[in-house]
Amino acid sequence: MLESKHIDFLKDIVGEDNCFFDKAHKIAYCYDATKERYEPDCVVFPRSEEDISSILRYCNENAIAVVPRGSGSGFTGGSLPSSGGVILAFEKHLNKIKEIDIKNLVAVVEPGVINMDLQKAVEEVGLFYPPDPASQDYSTIGGNVSENAGGMRATKYGITKDFVMALRAVLPNGEIIKSGKRTIKDVAGFNTTGILVGSEGSLAVISEITLKLLPKPKYTKTAMGIFPSIESAMNAVYKTIASGITPVAMEFLDNLTIRAVESKYKKGLPTDAGAILICDVDGSLIEDVEYQLKAVEEKFLENGASEFKKANSESEAKDIWFSRRNASQSITIYGSKKLNEDITVPRSKLPELLEEIAKVSKKYDLKIPCFGHTGDGNVHTNVMVEGGSKEQLEIGHKAIEEIFQIAINLGGTLSGEHGIGLSKAPFMKLAFSEAEMELFRSIKRAFDPNNILNPGKMGL
Amino acid sequence: MLESKHIDFLKDIVGEDNCFFDKAHKIAYCYDATKERYEPDCVVFPRSEEDISSILRYCNENAIAVVPRGSGSGFTGGSLPSSGGVILAFEKHLNKIKEIDIKNLVAVVEPGVINMDLQKAVEEVGLFYPPDPASQDYSTIGGNVSENAGGMRATKYGITKDFVMALRAVLPNGEIIKSGKRTIKDVAGFNTTGILVGSEGSLAVISEITLKLLPKPKYTKTAMGIFPSIESAMNAVYKTIASGITPVAMEFLDNLTIRAVESKYKKGLPTDAGAILICDVDGSLIEDVEYQLKAVEEKFLENGASEFKKANSESEAKDIWFSRRNASQSITIYGSKKLNEDITVPRSKLPELLEEIAKVSKKYDLKIPCFGHTGDGNVHTNVMVEGGSKEQLEIGHKAIEEIFQIAINLGGTLSGEHGIGLSKAPFMKLAFSEAEMELFRSIKRAFDPNNILNPGKMGL
Repeated sequence: MLESKHIDFLKDIVGEDNCFFDKAHKIAYCYDATKERYEPDCVVFPRSEEDISSILRYCNENAIAVVPRGSGSGFTGGSLPSSGGVILAFEKHLNKIKEIDIKNLVAVVEPGVINMDLQKAVEEVGLFYPPDPASQDYSTIGGNVSENAGGMRATKYGITKDFVMALRAVLPNGEIIKSGKRTIKDVAGFNTTGILVGSEGSLAVISEITLKLLPKPKYTKTAMGIFPSIESAMNAVYKTIASGITPVAMEFLDNLTIRAVESKYKKGLPTDAGAILICDVDGSLIEDVEYQLKAVEEKFLENGASEFKKANSESEAKDIWFSRRNASQSITIYGSKKLNEDITVPRSKLPELLEEIAKVSKKYDLKIPCFGHTGDGNVHTNVMVEGGSKEQLEIGHKAIEEIFQIAINLGGTLSGEHGIGLSKAPFMKLAFSEAEMELFRSIKRAFDPNNILNPGKMGL
Repeated sequence: MLESKHIDFLKDIVGEDNCFFDKAHKIAYCYDATKERYEPDCVVFPRSEEDISSILRYCNENAIAVVPRGSGSGFTGGSLPSSGGVILAFEKHLNKIKEIDIKNLVAVVEPGVINMDLQKAVEEVGLFYPPDPASQDYSTIGGNVSENAGGMRATKYGITKDFVMALRAVLPNGEIIKSGKRTIKDVAGFNTTGILVGSEGSLAVISEITLKLLPKPKYTKTAMGIFPSIESAMNAVYKTIASGITPVAMEFLDNLTIRAVESKYKKGLPTDAGAILICDVDGSLIEDVEYQLKAVEEKFLENGASEFKKANSESEAKDIWFSRRNASQSITIYGSKKLNEDITVPRSKLPELLEEIAKVSKKYDLKIPCFGHTGDGNVHTNVMVEGGSKEQLEIGHKAIEEIFQIAINLGGTLSGEHGIGLSKAPFMKLAFSEAEMELFRSIKRAFDPNNILNPGKMGL
């Protein structure tokens, strides 16, 4: 609980209208996509970088936890105030696109800007911001940077970190720092930008983000391949990319997911298929796009696709994407609770990964529908359980732990896009040695010696 | 001076054949491209990661400085043992390409591998490693990663940091850590890879590097534009790129540089031109490459180019590149000592930057030929002085300091590719606030509390 003198001080900084400690606000800011609940002591809407600085300086001196929060759409509890304290919320004031610099292909934004709003704004001037997490309609750029968000287009374009050129941020002691420049090359000083991206709000509060933009490709084409088995589809994925074609997206659905979507939406999907692959290619020259599509078709057929379907219009492309876009919500037919993980392995290990997951499914007698971004080795693995039963949930968690271990043994990671936060913190020991964890703790202390920023996250 | 017990211990670790403290070795390892000289106390060639670990653990306990060294080709003294101590040299043992993984488009190398050897090895299997610093024939990947090396192809492909997927490294306490994965997506734990790249060997000793590779583009085309003025050329650079074309390289030579090359080599260069731009475009479809070249031609002519020349063969391309490749050595006609800086500004600021540099040249009555990687805003600025005269050198340094300040005022950086090391350390205060410097020192302490790794670099 915050003492009343602290609340008075915070109100003094940001004004009565931007500082709340009533029950309604505490409830409104206690959740994220994990469905865990932790009420903050106070919700503050900073109006400026200077506000953030004053708040942090005060909280640092008084050992009050501060948790920066975008839209609360995270899957691992990164923005949950698990130790209470102050929620710093950016949606009210720090939500502006400050500049779209078409001369240098750069955008400068405040942390509360919604990803899709930025995408639309830059596309209006012929530019392109590729990172497109599934939450793009509501997640913020500040949250995307803090969790190093991925998305569908990572295969070709990379993830959030590949687009962050520079940051302004406030350290826990209230000092404002800049890192990086509006230039491709900048090698002066340590790469602070590099360590802040993906640091889950635990090192500094990001107050401004400078992003690299690309020219908007003029054409995108969509195609779908139907495969008899998971293995044939996974081979097609990595062999296509190794052949020199880099699709924008290469998404897959396994048989369980196909059947779930079909049972819900009756779209005429092939319910006996082992897997579907959905692929986008793009470019600014139609000949180039057609060439890529032809190469994908060849690789799909070489690797056992029974059918290859090209979209001839935007509405056909939308139809092809329908099954993927509705995968997540459809699989709930297999259980009321979904333990949704986002493990990632080197692409060539995908066949083995999915074979091993099938064994785990059999062992625990649990349905584990899988779909996701196979173009970059990132598989959304959904262990479905009946949420009401504590026993079932425990079995589900055991299965998840085994799957993490399998991914790590294959050279993969605990998390491709969701981060660690609270949910994956117990599994950090599977992935990191004690020396590595101690280094993380040292880095944390270097930025935040009093441990006020988003404490308790990442297993630190 | 190292005590003899220390030397005995180091010999015990790596063997007599890999540990030297004779004068010849000290001299052989006392230099880099800055021409500053600092003799180490000892030169050690570790045979393995375990050797590095044993050496660091011992030196850490005994407060002995350790300086990792690739080929000593750096321009800012990053590998100079300015506090004495042990040189860790990688050219003898840790110089192997461990794996080229064509399935996942990844290479795994030891730090002592020469950049060009890696480029050739991956090109043999149809792959491509883009970072190509001018030192590519002799600089090492370990050095490239430590200085975050750039090169000619950065405009399209980015710099070293954009290709480092994972590292193994040894901390000063001897602990071996891994960071990153052989995957595009990995958001578990802090991005240690991000902070190690460009850290100039001052945080940890990198023992293994996993690099992203690309499919090798099938076609490259070269063209040259001749411009009446610097300003018209600089406008052509940023307007070409802002129009949606991303050339591989977009290099420029100013009038002083053109005249220097011509006076030395008599190639028929236009000595009255304000600037030359040299441009490479590439792709895997010839139509795409032709389309890019056409677009470059249009933009060059729109922005005042008096001539646009396309290379019709590899030998014509080589001819076009000749002036750029020989720029650095030719400009010595303007003075025996070259104060060579690599400032970088946002591309749209290039016209202003070069205008301001011309004023500095006039003010100090010094020739300042400029050339470089304008596609990414990176200009090699060469203040030419008579090296014998201390007075001239002082004036040169004053001019340099003014140029740094101009670049920073334009939103640029002290260093686009060379790093800070010793040479640029005095200028850190121009670019960074005291809070930022203190953060750098905190990060340094988090990794290296006893300050044994490459002490005194970066102005820390």
